[in-house]
Amino acid sequence: MNLANLERQLSFLREIDQLKSVVRLTPLIDQSRRENSAEHSWHLAMYALVLAEYAAAPVDVARVVKMLLIHDIVEIDAGDVPFHDPSARAAQAELEQQAAERIFSLLPDAQAEEFRHLWFEFEAAESDDARFAKALDRFQPLLHNAATGGGSWVECHVTEAQALARYRPALERGAPALWEESARLIREHFGKSPAAPESPDSGYQEKR
Amino acid sequence: MNLANLERQLSFLREIDQLKSVVRLTPLIDQSRRENSAEHSWHLAMYALVLAEYAAAPVDVARVVKMLLIHDIVEIDAGDVPFHDPSARAAQAELEQQAAERIFSLLPDAQAEEFRHLWFEFEAAESDDARFAKALDRFQPLLHNAATGGGSWVECHVTEAQALARYRPALERGAPALWEESARLIREHFGKSPAAPESPDSGYQEKR
Repeated sequence: MNLANLERQLSFLREIDQLKSVVRLTPLIDQSRRENSAEHSWHLAMYALVLAEYAAAPVDVARVVKMLLIHDIVEIDAGDVPFHDPSARAAQAELEQQAAERIFSLLPDAQAEEFRHLWFEFEAAESDDARFAKALDRFQPLLHNAATGGGSWVECHVTEAQALARYRPALERGAPALWEESARLIREHFGKSPAAPESPDSGYQEKR
Repeated sequence: MNLANLERQLSFLREIDQLKSVVRLTPLIDQSRRENSAEHSWHLAMYALVLAEYAAAPVDVARVVKMLLIHDIVEIDAGDVPFHDPSARAAQAELEQQAAERIFSLLPDAQAEEFRHLWFEFEAAESDDARFAKALDRFQPLLHNAATGGGSWVECHVTEAQALARYRPALERGAPALWEESARLIREHFGKSPAAPESPDSGYQEKR
């Protein structure tokens, strides 16, 4: 056993405990509190195991799971920027790259390199595995919003058109069948919400 | 796409959100609060990715990760029973079996069967994958206790001898090198703690 390696690995595993304290906008489904990024990552890994059949192209589920387990670790330094705050998201990339450098480098070199590479692949969203992972990262909070009367859509004053436009690219590319379900859930929510047009002959009805 | 299947899968994914509300005795490392079972499962999956080289026998890391992601889902119905409360643990097996039956059955049949089987395999702790997974399930809270001045050891009035005896079987069988590190951490903690023998010639010193 390489003792120095084990020490580095345990430092990393202790360090990432902090992801449990990064709070997201998304509510738990029972609305008792907001979700944190560690439990969100667990939930996404479960989404990957359960929903792999809906990936746009054949994926390596184990790699997708791994990608999702590590995809938010950079938030320990960079924080979580809400999906519905595009201006804040623009400044985030640089912070997240620095975080990936610092945090993954706690590991022995080979593992650090592997995790950094996997995180970059997720961010780039060009491989089939990363595209599916990205789609799930959109789908899970959407499901929570739909199940809780709006969640971050209400909080961020998101319109139906914005929701459809923001979720569509990643979901349609990575998991088209889940995009169909997502569009249905978005339309259902905004159809019921007070912000929806009052007339049954409105644009909302035509879009269905 | 099989719509009925997708509905069952989404019901399951919504149901398991409740694992985020099952609170364990183990503290977060920053001691801000106790850990919940969903974020614990995420952390354990990361332990498996990072520490696979210490498994007692070659393991299929992806299977170990999958096992750890689902291993606590039964707690949604059965609750978490602290490791250091052996009397409560005895009554737990039956409750957990019923929970596995109910919760995994929300999924389409083939997936339900796969997850139930994987959970039974984890519980039985006879395969190499399950033994390693069990070892990690012991190791992570031990690391948190050691990093927080005792955690559940203090809360449950655990002695050094009890800690060594309780952690040893699963850890030594599944990851002997991590058992060595564990024994060192246990001895270090109890050596420093007020409950440790006061004399430098005590049994504690001899055991080192």
